[in-house]
Amino acid sequence: MQQMTYPEPRLTIREIMHARSVAVIGASEDESKWGGRALAILRRHTVSSEVYPVNPKASELMGLPAYKSIADCPRPVDIAMVLVPQAMILDTLEQCAKAGVGCAIVITSGFAEVGGDGHEIEARMREIARSGGMRVIGPNCIGILNAYSNMLASTAVALVEIDRAPGGTIGFTSQSGALMGSMLARGFDVGAGFSSLISLGNQCDIDINETFEYLIEDPQTRTICLYVEALRGPATFRSLLARAREAGKPVLVCKSGRSEAGEKAIQSHTASMTGAYATFEAVCRAEGAFLFENVSDMLDAAMLLSHGARLIKPSIAVFSGSGGAGALLVDALSAQGFTIAELTESTKASLRRVLPESNLQSPIDFGTLKPMGDAHPLYEDPFEYALGETMADENVGAGIVLLTSQPTMHKVAYATQKVGRKTDKPLLYVHVAGSIGDSARQVMREQGYGFVESQNDALKVFDALWQQTRMPSGVTATPVTFELPRLAGGFLSEPDARRMLEAASIPTTPWVMLKEIEEVVEHVERQGGAWVIKAVSPTLIHKSDIGAVKLNIQDGHSARQACREIAQALGSAQHSLDGYLVTRMVKADAELILGIKRDPDFGPMVVIGAGGTLVELLHDVQMMPAPVHAVQALAMIEQLKCFPLLKGWRGSRPADLAALAELIVATSQLACQDEALEEMDINPLMLVDGQFMAADARAFRRS
Amino acid sequence: MQQMTYPEPRLTIREIMHARSVAVIGASEDESKWGGRALAILRRHTVSSEVYPVNPKASELMGLPAYKSIADCPRPVDIAMVLVPQAMILDTLEQCAKAGVGCAIVITSGFAEVGGDGHEIEARMREIARSGGMRVIGPNCIGILNAYSNMLASTAVALVEIDRAPGGTIGFTSQSGALMGSMLARGFDVGAGFSSLISLGNQCDIDINETFEYLIEDPQTRTICLYVEALRGPATFRSLLARAREAGKPVLVCKSGRSEAGEKAIQSHTASMTGAYATFEAVCRAEGAFLFENVSDMLDAAMLLSHGARLIKPSIAVFSGSGGAGALLVDALSAQGFTIAELTESTKASLRRVLPESNLQSPIDFGTLKPMGDAHPLYEDPFEYALGETMADENVGAGIVLLTSQPTMHKVAYATQKVGRKTDKPLLYVHVAGSIGDSARQVMREQGYGFVESQNDALKVFDALWQQTRMPSGVTATPVTFELPRLAGGFLSEPDARRMLEAASIPTTPWVMLKEIEEVVEHVERQGGAWVIKAVSPTLIHKSDIGAVKLNIQDGHSARQACREIAQALGSAQHSLDGYLVTRMVKADAELILGIKRDPDFGPMVVIGAGGTLVELLHDVQMMPAPVHAVQALAMIEQLKCFPLLKGWRGSRPADLAALAELIVATSQLACQDEALEEMDINPLMLVDGQFMAADARAFRRS
Repeated sequence: MQQMTYPEPRLTIREIMHARSVAVIGASEDESKWGGRALAILRRHTVSSEVYPVNPKASELMGLPAYKSIADCPRPVDIAMVLVPQAMILDTLEQCAKAGVGCAIVITSGFAEVGGDGHEIEARMREIARSGGMRVIGPNCIGILNAYSNMLASTAVALVEIDRAPGGTIGFTSQSGALMGSMLARGFDVGAGFSSLISLGNQCDIDINETFEYLIEDPQTRTICLYVEALRGPATFRSLLARAREAGKPVLVCKSGRSEAGEKAIQSHTASMTGAYATFEAVCRAEGAFLFENVSDMLDAAMLLSHGARLIKPSIAVFSGSGGAGALLVDALSAQGFTIAELTESTKASLRRVLPESNLQSPIDFGTLKPMGDAHPLYEDPFEYALGETMADENVGAGIVLLTSQPTMHKVAYATQKVGRKTDKPLLYVHVAGSIGDSARQVMREQGYGFVESQNDALKVFDALWQQTRMPSGVTATPVTFELPRLAGGFLSEPDARRMLEAASIPTTPWVMLKEIEEVVEHVERQGGAWVIKAVSPTLIHKSDIGAVKLNIQDGHSARQACREIAQALGSAQHSLDGYLVTRMVKADAELILGIKRDPDFGPMVVIGAGGTLVELLHDVQMMPAPVHAVQALAMIEQLKCFPLLKGWRGSRPADLAALAELIVATSQLACQDEALEEMDINPLMLVDGQFMAADARAFRRS
Repeated sequence: MQQMTYPEPRLTIREIMHARSVAVIGASEDESKWGGRALAILRRHTVSSEVYPVNPKASELMGLPAYKSIADCPRPVDIAMVLVPQAMILDTLEQCAKAGVGCAIVITSGFAEVGGDGHEIEARMREIARSGGMRVIGPNCIGILNAYSNMLASTAVALVEIDRAPGGTIGFTSQSGALMGSMLARGFDVGAGFSSLISLGNQCDIDINETFEYLIEDPQTRTICLYVEALRGPATFRSLLARAREAGKPVLVCKSGRSEAGEKAIQSHTASMTGAYATFEAVCRAEGAFLFENVSDMLDAAMLLSHGARLIKPSIAVFSGSGGAGALLVDALSAQGFTIAELTESTKASLRRVLPESNLQSPIDFGTLKPMGDAHPLYEDPFEYALGETMADENVGAGIVLLTSQPTMHKVAYATQKVGRKTDKPLLYVHVAGSIGDSARQVMREQGYGFVESQNDALKVFDALWQQTRMPSGVTATPVTFELPRLAGGFLSEPDARRMLEAASIPTTPWVMLKEIEEVVEHVERQGGAWVIKAVSPTLIHKSDIGAVKLNIQDGHSARQACREIAQALGSAQHSLDGYLVTRMVKADAELILGIKRDPDFGPMVVIGAGGTLVELLHDVQMMPAPVHAVQALAMIEQLKCFPLLKGWRGSRPADLAALAELIVATSQLACQDEALEEMDINPLMLVDGQFMAADARAFRRS
């Protein structure tokens, strides 16, 4: 097959997002039809672009001159919104390309996501576009909008109800149209301001990496939100995460496909195969992105971040108009692992001016506030004063103002956003007064500050912020090269695996490889103590399953017996036997697993987790892409659920955590250096007298 | 001190909740004052009672004749709302009592909750009331309302904004006024209908048990919600839980004080000492109550329950207008431990009429629905048809309809509530379209069906429903009496503790108590195998701490050595030594703890949890009040986080779960029979070859 040479696309993504003209192919007077709604939205919003309705049967639509075909529209047509039936798509795109359209936004759905010949049609769409220097967004999308320049080409239902999309600094690009609609709807409610919103649909041409890159470069965008189903260029995505971080733009990510049911759903949604969620998550964490379970939480967090707030310390101050609601909130925060901030004496002294002695700790019931007395140069009222002084306290990492309902709630809201904008700590307003408190909601909406209406949402938002803080990002591990032994492909024998680990400075339990039974007997007798004897076989992977591992061998007689049983077991199972690995039987204070797996999208990953009984019970695993920096390794360790076991559990010696972090780093370097190393598992990695050593290892190398 | 005899109160709680006259003491024209707001609310709502403003300086207020004092009001005055300053409270109550007021509702705050002489003033208030045959609600409350009979005497801010509190079947009584306000506000938003709402404040006279009992007896109330800070009569509370259950009225409970910070907050809020949250929770679960972290979730669940829905099977069907949002929801449900319902072939066959083959599993994207073809006798449109057929599927335990935004969302909402009312499974409508989707919210409000606006809330509501289902209630354990040995008070020696367990049919590891060292030596030599030797001392509680437990003794020599060391250790620590407990050293497949603790409020509790390393790491504990029925015991076992360890973990023999349940039951019977038994701990309870046995036990009996 001949390699095609395509012309340069006429427009960049940036030019598309600032289109000067938008044609609507399939425009109609009937707003119940997609083509009618698209046009009605363009008419309702005073958009910055020219608008060209295209309909072969009309000469005027919604007060605008209509054109019979795209070719009849005045040139140039930057964007053509395509809302024609599926069967007409290819012809329409041909006409668009011929007419010099810069970008076709295909709203029509029913292609790859429903199977059949959808994939081929999309390939053909891409081909038509590329040959004509045109770009395509979609199909199966709801279009794009640039709230800053008031350019829009979208069918989002929310745009029917409002006449101007709220402008601001949050950029969002989404593989789901409905979730973009939901973001827009919620954004309108809570006063979020957007730079651009881009729905990508099936990504037959323009994919999320391109729009992500646009948002990184877009000067109007300061906070980036992504809804991801599947990535086409994982490595590029990762490098974009890093670029955004370097540009100081927080990236918030929500990805579906964590569960089996979710993966299946995505396949039938935009016809994408998801990568593994766990590795995606690890990469995002390594690059400092924030992760969310749903787009509402993502937007709520984006608003806090867009005000410049960062959660550095998980210590929360709570202000509540209700003692009961405040008590429930601190209960829930505590259950989630947050601490309730204890104020410094100096802050308490300030608060005494307006609060009774009984109310100087969270939850601070602002129903008990007294008048200020003298005016204060910074604060307008006692609530603002108390909140401002509390947020400035060094012990406070973040604040929540919880409002049930009270007569002057709009004042509370106003003061909250005022203090919130001044502090660099997250201050979240939780409005549980419902529409009764519309005056307060209205304040927050007008001020563009944001709020949540559920305690559960507040907890999720703070949790996502804190998870991001816990994993250091923007650190680059210095590459190290080990002098590795020459290793064959396939599963390594345990002696080879141990030699590889030792070459990478990863200690293993003391061991010898012996060929003959009598050598084993002599070794055990001479050295004394307790030993483990294992078969060494090039063909046997799961040694324990056939009785090829013998524990707690303390004398020559038992050693001989053990070796004979091993030899017989391997003989019966038709495995060849190279000899016996004899290693010290050690008693561990804790057992971990440490390993490498190679992800098809993101390359080598390092995994550390609880071992022994806990491994399946706790599902206690931390993963990071290799290479791992020591500070990230330490953060992985601290985030293990079994971390308490390592800190000197029940009088045992505390583990040398820095040394453990170095083992994680070394494992990650090994993964980077030996590209043939597909998989490696140290299980268990034993904690003995504060130090770690590999007691068993399995590894597989590509041939 | 002489015992006072009080007259019968003039009014029952029921009569108070149906008051025919409400006086407002401290009434004002000024709505920014509490007395003005109280009167304005009474004027705005066409209440069923007479209204008497009381103000010494006015002859008319808000168009009503005003009275100089309560004595001047026409008799009888059923309720007097008291909104005068703190200093005037006692005088005012005296006047009320003298004037024959049935119930004074003291809105004024600043008594026990702020400390000082608040407690004494409240005691005086109670005394004035009782002597006069009057009742008091409050102080520090926002009053009461009966939405069914349109009687109200409340300052809730929400009542200023609406002119009729929505009537229905949900009754709520609350120790926090603001949370009652929040419930009312949210109820108004989502269309909840209330029977009565009662704010109790500091409960100086009427407490939550009385109002809870009223709600049980009130024919208009079918679902009961409680916000609890502290109970005055725990035993009564528990019996009320049982009465409500027997009356078929679901009880939903939200209690603050789970955390230390929450407990402190409550003390400074309504001046109550909370009981231990864990035992409160256990009692609620045993009696079939539903537990919530906040009142919003409680109200959302109350609406589902008030439609008759129960969550029997944790298998959820998801309908979503957005593939992306649906995928995120199934991800979140899966992470929470729910399964995604797999539809039966027969349901799939029905759905094929309106859905493509690729969309017959959750999340069902209702954007892909096709027209029905022929009309259906039951369903109006394809969405209602698909939802109705899905909810009828035997594999489906509950449903969620998730709406981002779409043009016809009010139709989706209407069909959802229609199907939801017909099924006895919970069908929750999650509206993430915000105010853009007001038409759909309006439908749900008018239909009184309810909805949530956050995925996080939906998960919390379903989780609370499922937790209730998991614990069988309304089962009565048959009392069993054991022939117990005579036991002294204080800490029991291990042999005594073992004898007690054995008398209660709880197996212990084989053991003998021997006086002399040489007896121990002979025993070990004669029997062979591995043994544990422990000191038996009347004064030594923590044996391991001073080296008085020796493990893995396999021969006479080691036995003698061990005994000598024990004797010496006890000597040095100045403990007397009664002899040696010699017990089999057993290897356990799993270790549990099983114990008794006596709660000052609710009496004896049985606790089972993970033992060994897991005990502190997992905080894996289930608690139930004694006596425990076998089906509850089994539910406790199944809800342990370490439950997988008991089911035949890694090839070990599965535990006999029925036998383990019997041990829990026996422990609970022991707790009931021996009332002096304050505390008992079997730690560890070992799983050996599928059976359990106590390997150590500690117990403390009151003298």
